Formats: sequence, structure tokens, C-alpha cells
Amino acid sequence: MDVSEIDTPALVVDLDIFERNLACVASYAREHGLRLRPHTKTHKSVRLARRQIASGAAGLTVAKVSEAEIMLAAEPDDLLVAYPIIGHTKLARLTQVAGRTRVTVALDSTFAARQLSDAARAAQVEIGVLAEVDAGLGRVGVAPGEPLLQLAQAIEKLPHLRFAGLAFYPGHIKTLDGSGLRALAQLSDLLRGILGDFRAAGIETGTVSGGSTPTLFHSHEIHGLTEIRPGTYVFNDLNTVRSGACALEDCAATILATVVSTARPGQMIIDGGSKTFSSDRLADTAEVTFGHLVEAPGARFHKMNEEHGFIDLSHAGAGFSVGDRVRVIPNHICVAVNLHEKVYGVRGDLVEEVWPVDARGKLQ
Amino acid sequence: MDVSEIDTPALVVDLDIFERNLACVASYAREHGLRLRPHTKTHKSVRLARRQIASGAAGLTVAKVSEAEIMLAAEPDDLLVAYPIIGHTKLARLTQVAGRTRVTVALDSTFAARQLSDAARAAQVEIGVLAEVDAGLGRVGVAPGEPLLQLAQAIEKLPHLRFAGLAFYPGHIKTLDGSGLRALAQLSDLLRGILGDFRAAGIETGTVSGGSTPTLFHSHEIHGLTEIRPGTYVFNDLNTVRSGACALEDCAATILATVVSTARPGQMIIDGGSKTFSSDRLADTAEVTFGHLVEAPGARFHKMNEEHGFIDLSHAGAGFSVGDRVRVIPNHICVAVNLHEKVYGVRGDLVEEVWPVDARGKLQ
Repeated sequence: MDVSEIDTPALVVDLDIFERNLACVASYAREHGLRLRPHTKTHKSVRLARRQIASGAAGLTVAKVSEAEIMLAAEPDDLLVAYPIIGHTKLARLTQVAGRTRVTVALDSTFAARQLSDAARAAQVEIGVLAEVDAGLGRVGVAPGEPLLQLAQAIEKLPHLRFAGLAFYPGHIKTLDGSGLRALAQLSDLLRGILGDFRAAGIETGTVSGGSTPTLFHSHEIHGLTEIRPGTYVFNDLNTVRSGACALEDCAATILATVVSTARPGQMIIDGGSKTFSSDRLADTAEVTFGHLVEAPGARFHKMNEEHGFIDLSHAGAGFSVGDRVRVIPNHICVAVNLHEKVYGVRGDLVEEVWPVDARGKLQ
Repeated sequence: MDVSEIDTPALVVDLDIFERNLACVASYAREHGLRLRPHTKTHKSVRLARRQIASGAAGLTVAKVSEAEIMLAAEPDDLLVAYPIIGHTKLARLTQVAGRTRVTVALDSTFAARQLSDAARAAQVEIGVLAEVDAGLGRVGVAPGEPLLQLAQAIEKLPHLRFAGLAFYPGHIKTLDGSGLRALAQLSDLLRGILGDFRAAGIETGTVSGGSTPTLFHSHEIHGLTEIRPGTYVFNDLNTVRSGACALEDCAATILATVVSTARPGQMIIDGGSKTFSSDRLADTAEVTFGHLVEAPGARFHKMNEEHGFIDLSHAGAGFSVGDRVRVIPNHICVAVNLHEKVYGVRGDLVEEVWPVDARGKLQ
């Protein structure tokens, strides 16, 4: 099948770029002695998780129990659920997963730890736990210092839990400019302090798990870090480009779209909007645009409805007709993938494989 | 099953409110002699489409050929594809649908009309066509006047097409305040002019199809309108409330979510973010919030990541603990529904039915 036969809108992955991204991060992790446990939230695909494992990933990361259930098919030695799992229904399912592979959960409350311990005891399994610390994002994670030590001590005491170390997510660092690099240095100092606290308290922190795609290639500069969990790096997206962590040429995934209307002068409408790209804006700017047109970098994808993308062509330097096809690099690939049932893997003009987005819409 | 047994995050529809919304719009359309052809993009459910037909809808509207294929199961007498269908693959599928029920397409280019005519001839079916006019949104639709007349005349001449009238979408009218009502009056004037042009040119405009949920109950004031295509009215959402077209009490759909972290004082994190709600912002304001918390209207849902909702509780007047559950009315229900595999229909505290989102993610 030729790329021209793919019906639009469709999610297309350039396999050469994808494989290069995979190899590059695997080699970076190996070189710096960092354990690579990629987050599967980006691709949500068993097939791609298998490739990550084959190329050197020591385990997988997921955000949901349903994702953990699905990713078992990739046969990981180790699954990290980087999300506090709350409630008996989910915990019962999680312990089933823990009966099939080693499971670790990152959490930030003794409430969550106690519920997890109860569920693990009922199912007679052991579950690893990382104490989540807030490294600056202000999302989940307890404050460094006394709250973090207390959480770790609580986890250590609970039956059927294995205290496995620390987790954090440096999502507050969105760019690698001066202020981003200063924030990275602060993060490193923070971790040095935390690890000092833990040593003083006699608590062993086996794993220190962090890392995001924007900060990826600076992970070795973060004091004490043992594990990275990047997700987006497999495909990259406009946010990654703008963060400074990759170039446009490293973006493996594009949305293939068709021009459906040119009725208004200086504008065209493509057959994808918020149900195809998601309405995520760029992370680093107040400017409202929704993607980069490969065929016309000067075009401005400035507005969307559910099934319509509005492209301003005033500065596009190119004209388009109804029926023309364009490729768009989205702002945020993770949310875009979740809107698609399948992905076309292409090499040059040839569709080499088509894979399902296995964990699409698995919310619970 | 009790509501308390639903695992979160989940999309929950209050059946009493849903049925009231359904009856209210059916009765409004009947009273004013308007044909009701609801847009199924909001619920994407065959079951709900059947209920719309049973309560008086004369047909259904869809945006995609895949949605048309799925909605055939609701046995509509009539399907409107309110989107220019471009490309041979889609057109071949569309003619298959046209072999099973009456199909009409809204389009805005002679290119699209010619492709459609060719496909209809090849399949030996007849397809109705509405000429799409830009009524102020600046999306699809040709300009009123000569371009519109020329499009209609081109459609009339093409074999296997039946010129069925005009379509427009008044999506530029987002609120029913003074300026919204003035825009409605302008729209009415515009249509009066267009219909005059068509009469003068001897072209019969059988159907004049318009209507959106915000302008819904003013449809009878729009000159010449014969058909309305509201979608959101079945559930309503915060945008509909803010447009003035409904009250909070008319919102049938909420996202049920669980508090997973309260580690940061004055804030809680719920287990739904952009992959649960979509990142659509409110349509009428620059204020960035993502939903209304039923249990704490003063809480501010101001930020999200993929699986995390950030709720600022500074002015909530209520405290929450990890494990608590909250209901959130989303900004835009259509994009939220598309993120869910199923919907829980509840009456009081009881789950009465669970239905699949049949056309979820059907992009082509």
C-alpha cells in the first residue's frame, strides 16, 4: 500500500525516524548507566512497547491500571504505574497484574499506600512503591524534607509493599534555555539534599526515577538519578522541538490531512480538528497554533473545531486546492495518538505496517 | 449497579435531564414547524440516535462517512453528511450508505460536487446536495451572492445529484447577549437576501438547514429556516450554559472523577485530564478553566495534564480527601464523549444502562 492510498485524517509514523529516536535514547541511557523505563502513554501500543524492550528498555511505565493490563502483552519484566492508584476496583485489578510481572506504583499519600498494602495482602502479592516527591511541578508528590521522609517510612512499614525508592516528574521544565537549565541545576541540588536526608535516616533509595522528554539528554547531570521514563521521544512533537530537545527532522509522527474547502480567500480548511489533533496548545507560548505544516511551514494552523482545521495561508508562500493532502506535526503527540484507532508506519512512500492504538481511551 | 460502583474517570449521563432535553427540543421544533435533524457528533451513539428519531427527529446529521455507516443502525429515513466529502475512498463508501437510506451532503465547491456526482453515477444512486453558505463563521461555505448561486447551478446540472437547498452553520454566534442577538438578526437578513436571489434566479431551495445549540431556541426567528441540526442539546455543557441557551441544571452529562492527591495545600488532583475532558477551553472567555465542579462550584479547575486535573480549592468552601469523588460538567461535551468508550446512564443513584460510544474515534 502506498501512502497516497491512506484515507485521511490519519496518523502516520515515519519508521526511519522512529527507529532512530528509539536507538538514540537507548544508547544515551546505556552510555550514562541510566535505567530506561519508557512511558507507554505516548504510543499506547503493545507492538511499540516490545520494540522499546528489544532495544534496551528495562521495563515499561504506564499511567493507568488498564494500560498496565494491556502492556502485559509486551511481556515486560517490570511495570511502573506512575500514578497513585485509588479505589478497590482498580487495586484488585492491579494485584492481578502483579501476579504476572513485577509491579511498582508511584504514590504520594499514606492513604494510597495503605489501600495498596491491603489489596496486595488480600491477593498475596508484593508490590514495589516509589514515594513521589514534588520536584517543582506542583502536581502530585509530597514536599521534600519531613513529608517525604514520613511517606517513605510509612511505606516501609506496610506489609506486602516493598519500598523501592523515589519518583518525580520534572514537567515544570519545558525548555532548555537559560531558565530551564537553571531549573535543572536546582532539581539536582534538591535531589542531593533529599538523598542526604534519606541516608541520614537510614533509608535506602534503590531507585531514583525521573526524567521527561524535554530534559531527557540532561538526565545524567541530575544528581542521584538512576532511571528515566521518557514517553514522547519515540515520536517527538512541536513541543519537543520548541523545548530544544529535538529538531523538526526528529518528528516521526504527522497527521495526514486533506484540504476540504478553499472557499474563503487566503484560508483553507483541512479534515481534522480537535477530534483529530486534540486542542492542546503549545506549552511554551501564548501563541495559539495547532501544528506545523510540513508542506507549507509559513501556513498558520490557528483555529479548530471538532472536524475542521483552519489554516491561514497569508504567509504560506504556497497555494492549495480542495483534495490536496498535507502533513501536520501536532503540538502534543500523546493526546493526538489517543484520538486515533490505528497508526500507519511508513518507510518512504510505502506503508510497511499498520498497528492498533491498543490502550486508546483506556481511562480506568 | 449503584453510581458509587462506577470506576473513575467515567462519563455519566443523568437520564431524567437527558430525556427532558430531548423532549424540549422535539417539542420546540414541532411547535415552530421546523424539521429536526440532530447532529449525532455529540453522543456518537446508535442508541441515542434511535431515541432522537423516536421523539420526533426527521433524520440524523453526521460529519463523517464512518459516522454515517454507523448511524445506519439507527435506521434513519434520512442522513445528512454536513461536511464536504472529498476523495474516492470516502465517496465509494458514501454511495454504499446511499444505497441503504436517503443521503444528503452539504458541500461548498464544484470540485466536491463533481467528485460526488461521479461516484453517485458509478454506484447508480442519487444523492441530495445542500449548497453550503458562509453565514459569518468563516469556515466552510461559499460567500452569499454570485458564488452561492453559481454553486447551486453547478449542482443542479450534475447527474445523480439532487439539489436540495442550502446549509449554513451559525457557529460564530456563541452567546445570546446583545451582540449575539444582533448577529442573529443579521443572519436572518442575510437569508432573506439569499432566498430572494434564488427566487429571482428560478432556483427552488427546498431545505434551508441551519441551527446550532446556542441559537437553538431562536431558530424560528431566522427567516426561511426549515431545518435545525443541534447536537449538544442532548447533554448540554458549560459552553451552552454560558451561551445563555440552558441552565446548569440542564447539563445531563458529567465526568465522575476521583481525588488522587491532596499533597499540595489548597489544591487537589483528580484522575482526569486532557485525555478525559479534552483540553477545549471555554468558548466565550479568555479565562482558562476546564469544568464546573458540582460538589464545589467555587473550586477552580485551572490546569490539566493528560491524566491529571488540577483543582484550586482556595475559594472552594469545601475540603476533599484522597478517594473522594466529584462530578465535573465539562466545557465541551462533544469532544469529551469522543474520549470515552462507554457512557453510564443513571437515574438517581442507580445505573440504568451503559451504552458504547459507537462512533468514537471514527475519523474517516
